Amino acid sequence: MTTAHEIEVYIRFAETDALGHVNNTSYFLYFEEARTKFFKEILPERNKNLSFILASIKCQYLNQAFAGQTLRVCTNVLKVGTKSFTMSQTILSPDTGITIAEAEAVTVCFNYLEQKTISIPERLRLKLENHLIVGPIY
Amino acid sequence: MTTAHEIEVYIRFAETDALGHVNNTSYFLYFEEARTKFFKEILPERNKNLSFILASIKCQYLNQAFAGQTLRVCTNVLKVGTKSFTMSQTILSPDTGITIAEAEAVTVCFNYLEQKTISIPERLRLKLENHLIVGPIY
Amino acid sequence: MTTAHEIEVYIRFAETDALGHVNNTSYFLYFEEARTKFFKEILPERNKNLSFILASIKCQYLNQAFAGQTLRVCTNVLKVGTKSFTMSQTILSPDTGITIAEAEAVTVCFNYLEQKTISIPERLRLKLENHLIVGPIY
Amino acid sequence: MTTAHEIEVYIRFAETDALGHVNNTSYFLYFEEARTKFFKEILPERNKNLSFILASIKCQYLNQAFAGQTLRVCTNVLKVGTKSFTMSQTILSPDTGITIAEAEAVTVCFNYLEQKTISIPERLRLKLENHLIVGPIY
Repeated sequence: MTTAHEIEVYIRFAETDALGHVNNTSYFLYFEEARTKFFKEILPERNKNLSFILASIKCQYLNQAFAGQTLRVCTNVLKVGTKSFTMSQTILSPDTGITIAEAEAVTVCFNYLEQKTISIPERLRLKLENHLIVGPIY
Repeated sequence: MTTAHEIEVYIRFAETDALGHVNNTSYFLYFEEARTKFFKEILPERNKNLSFILASIKCQYLNQAFAGQTLRVCTNVLKVGTKSFTMSQTILSPDTGITIAEAEAVTVCFNYLEQKTISIPERLRLKLENHLIVGPIY
Repeated sequence: MTTAHEIEVYIRFAETDALGHVNNTSYFLYFEEARTKFFKEILPERNKNLSFILASIKCQYLNQAFAGQTLRVCTNVLKVGTKSFTMSQTILSPDTGITIAEAEAVTVCFNYLEQKTISIPERLRLKLENHLIVGPIY
Repeated sequence: MTTAHEIEVYIRFAETDALGHVNNTSYFLYFEEARTKFFKEILPERNKNLSFILASIKCQYLNQAFAGQTLRVCTNVLKVGTKSFTMSQTILSPDTGITIAEAEAVTVCFNYLEQKTISIPERLRLKLENHLIVGPIY
């Protein structure tokens, strides 16, 4: 059983562009904020022995968004590997139910002090698996 | 035969984050600047009947970059479809030759006046094909 | 009598810089968000005959802020002129009570259709005066 | 005798907003880039004993700018105090000669290791005075 982690973001005027809508680069701000809060929730006591490095992110732009809107960002876990895990992130308009953008982000566990990638700690693995999506998602 | 379109970008201090390096969201600014200049070069006379909408972008983060560096962004064409085309974009450090990040961006041709996707105009298709990579790239 | 307009902003990791704190440019995002919401509150039904153009803004940086914090932005009106008005904006840490930054922003009323500055409409003037600070503020 | 320090900046599409022009917050990116390069030029060998902290900045918006433009940012020194100095920064369109925005930025010398403000080092004072504007500037 899984429940998506959800946050709401207010779309700032500065995050739009001259086409009148939210600029393609701004969505990554929303995805990063959601991942950060997700990590804070599942691992509030994280210390400097465990950092998260973004290895890759792919965003698909499905519908436009506009200044002044409040959007919802839902974050789930798609896959848990040995040293890395993959998150699925969806941005929706709560008012219309329309999906604005979808991302897939791969994050690697890293020890900054030793400057090397590390295995996902067992405690984190359990938390991630609680947010794992089972079955088809789209 | 193909030559990559190349630009240089200066890394601003504001584009770094508290980990001391360039934030993951900043790379999309560099990729967008490179695509914009690429479009301007191959189609300087573009009018409002032809807009480019980003359908998706995937970025892989390979090495860190830092404030004050000047990086090179190389843009090529990977695939030309009916209404959309795919670009390959690479960010390198010209000093070390190290690849910092790689992106793949899918762009759709769009007519804003009629609010619909359109086929790639023939003149643009020829220009894109001049930047098409042939053979294996990585 | 006056009550400041208040909003809370979450400090994103992308808004920090390599010095480990919030970058000087990011504060203007928070000030803009607060002004936008202030305008929305006092004039929810604003149409295209009335735009607000920022004529100047001055920010004083008093203390550092960091990723993950939630800050409060308070907006008041300092002065109401004929065509422009001046707002005072303060960013505080609600946890410590410490002031992080203070701004003074001058906004001009503008009619985009006619492309000219206009007098502050009477209805807006009354709303602005409700948020006018009387007496010494600092 | 004085010569302004000058850089050119390309206006990115992401730096515009839904009003079709450069967003008010983006100008601070250009001013920061110019100050950073100015410091690099006058003090290339600066080490960690000397940091520059922005104490305040005021920007006046005089004319609009648009995506794809290349603007010039000129930086001069207005005043050299004991621990701080004031810079004047102007953003112009090289094509039209029109002034887009003007800023005044106060910077304080700081020793991060000892976490305290320090007097302007003599060597820096001389460099700053070479860029000091004499006489009326506006």
